[in-house]
Amino acid sequence: MVKILTYFIAIFLLIGCKNEEESSSETVKITEKAQKTEENFGIVIHGGAGTILKENMSDSLEAAYKSKLKEAISAGYEILKNGGTSLDAVTHTINIMEDSPLFNSGKGAVFTHDGTNELDASIMDGATLNAGAVAGVKHIKNPIDLARDVMQKSEHVMLYGAGAEEFAQILGYKMMDTSYFYSQNRYESLHRVLEKEKEKGENQVSFNDPFIKNSKFGTVGCAALDKQGNLAAGTSTGGMTNKRWNRIGDAPIIGAGTYANNATCAVSSTGWGEFFIRSVVAYDISALMEYKGMTLQEAASEVIQKKVPALGGDGGIVAIDKDGNVAMEFNTAGMYRATMNSEGKLIIKIYKE
Amino acid sequence: MVKILTYFIAIFLLIGCKNEEESSSETVKITEKAQKTEENFGIVIHGGAGTILKENMSDSLEAAYKSKLKEAISAGYEILKNGGTSLDAVTHTINIMEDSPLFNSGKGAVFTHDGTNELDASIMDGATLNAGAVAGVKHIKNPIDLARDVMQKSEHVMLYGAGAEEFAQILGYKMMDTSYFYSQNRYESLHRVLEKEKEKGENQVSFNDPFIKNSKFGTVGCAALDKQGNLAAGTSTGGMTNKRWNRIGDAPIIGAGTYANNATCAVSSTGWGEFFIRSVVAYDISALMEYKGMTLQEAASEVIQKKVPALGGDGGIVAIDKDGNVAMEFNTAGMYRATMNSEGKLIIKIYKE
Repeated sequence: MVKILTYFIAIFLLIGCKNEEESSSETVKITEKAQKTEENFGIVIHGGAGTILKENMSDSLEAAYKSKLKEAISAGYEILKNGGTSLDAVTHTINIMEDSPLFNSGKGAVFTHDGTNELDASIMDGATLNAGAVAGVKHIKNPIDLARDVMQKSEHVMLYGAGAEEFAQILGYKMMDTSYFYSQNRYESLHRVLEKEKEKGENQVSFNDPFIKNSKFGTVGCAALDKQGNLAAGTSTGGMTNKRWNRIGDAPIIGAGTYANNATCAVSSTGWGEFFIRSVVAYDISALMEYKGMTLQEAASEVIQKKVPALGGDGGIVAIDKDGNVAMEFNTAGMYRATMNSEGKLIIKIYKE
Repeated sequence: MVKILTYFIAIFLLIGCKNEEESSSETVKITEKAQKTEENFGIVIHGGAGTILKENMSDSLEAAYKSKLKEAISAGYEILKNGGTSLDAVTHTINIMEDSPLFNSGKGAVFTHDGTNELDASIMDGATLNAGAVAGVKHIKNPIDLARDVMQKSEHVMLYGAGAEEFAQILGYKMMDTSYFYSQNRYESLHRVLEKEKEKGENQVSFNDPFIKNSKFGTVGCAALDKQGNLAAGTSTGGMTNKRWNRIGDAPIIGAGTYANNATCAVSSTGWGEFFIRSVVAYDISALMEYKGMTLQEAASEVIQKKVPALGGDGGIVAIDKDGNVAMEFNTAGMYRATMNSEGKLIIKIYKE
């Protein structure tokens, strides 16, 4: 009887041990997953794509770009590292680029045909699929902030020009004097473009002249994944030098210039806006992942290396997926870009490599 | 020798015959395909979706809507039947609805918060993936025509307000006096909405009050397949009663309000624009077909019955695919809609059935 009892106790203990082993291995797994999620944040930015060639760039200018890209991405990285939201990381990172005259957004915005600066921006929250955008604003220092307020403080997605600024004023935004956006080199660019138009005796040569075409690039953008697993993306631009007729490009168009969805990825575009709108670039990358099971890199490559060029367009994107994988894809000579992963590894690049 | 020669000649003839057979069978195939394509045209339209209930509709008003829908779709059908392009069918069909005060587009446009009319429209060519859009125009009788001219006569996709009208003036468009867009009932609607806002003591109640929410519907749109196998879609609207801050809805956004691609389908949306932008409605239907192999009806149902309501939005779409299949999908009480296939079969409906 004792023998039998001992036998049962032995078996019981064995089963108990096995269970304990199983549950302890499960605990390890859960801990690993939690740690992985906790660590699994990241950020990626662009400062525009175009005919950016090493031979046309001075060492000091290259250093200035790299330094500003580093400053911008580090600000977003710190927010994410400290448990902040991807929306905050995207907004503050873009603010730094908007405030720099190096990029075609905020302070560095290019000039329209009429010698004004018209700014566009958009942002999307991958957790809620909420989105906000402004286009054609002329007195807003940081259009990405206003896009975010349209998303979070209005029932709208997209506001234009004077109306968007009226909304901004209700929220207490300072209206900047247009002189804030003036930069000598951008103004000279406009006049070079206007001279070119005059020489050729036609309007709208901008699209076919490589010199002028290039001058429209320089949009900034950011995509980020935070520790909570939430994705966000934002884009801010001054549009195209010599643009007229209140042209709206892809930057403020949700689905074209910006898209974010926690189920897939967050994307910010930069390039020839008309082709990016027609190709629904940012959403298409998400759709290829969700519906065709492509990886982020495969989807980005499909859209930027095949679909957009097939229509005749060029430019690039930066994107990050829900697992923290990053894509920086472009079909131009260069794209100002940087990324930092959860381990703090920083990559900054300008040219093709 | 003669035998051998005869043998070779026989073989040669046999090969010849086989080739002829093959090529004649190919000819038959081509003819069949051509005939199939020739027959396979169709058109579908909407005049807005919303709380359209039989108990709220007089017989005479219902008859007026049905008569105008019939007039509009018949005009497009005749163009297609006579070998015209889907772009022409879409444009002319929408023109008839724009010119009618029954719909919230062109002459029947609703009033903004400031008592003006701001019109939006977009069009897309499925053969070239070219697209055009205008938003916030105030003096254009037929905004869909201007959207088409932006597509075909400029390098741009999207122009706004005064800039879009400057482009129109270069093309010789007549600038309409704003009084053309005035309609007593739309103006009264605005004032009812403003009263409601005053009562509730807050701005922007429009989105949460069912009466006001409903007043924003009434966008018109059309999708067509022509005998050449080319798809096109277009959308035209006055936007939302009491809209302010130069709000842009989904109608002029390529991918949200309008999308066309010969590889899949042509779609025009109508509904709560903000949700349609966030859901990239029109392109998503195309993507579900292209990437997941859904039929048009499955894709339309997935987006309109599941994805848009999941975010809290409502509205509908009309669409036609490359084989002439039609979808008229909505999640509201009703949608003014009609379709005609290549056999001339006409369906006109208003309510759910």
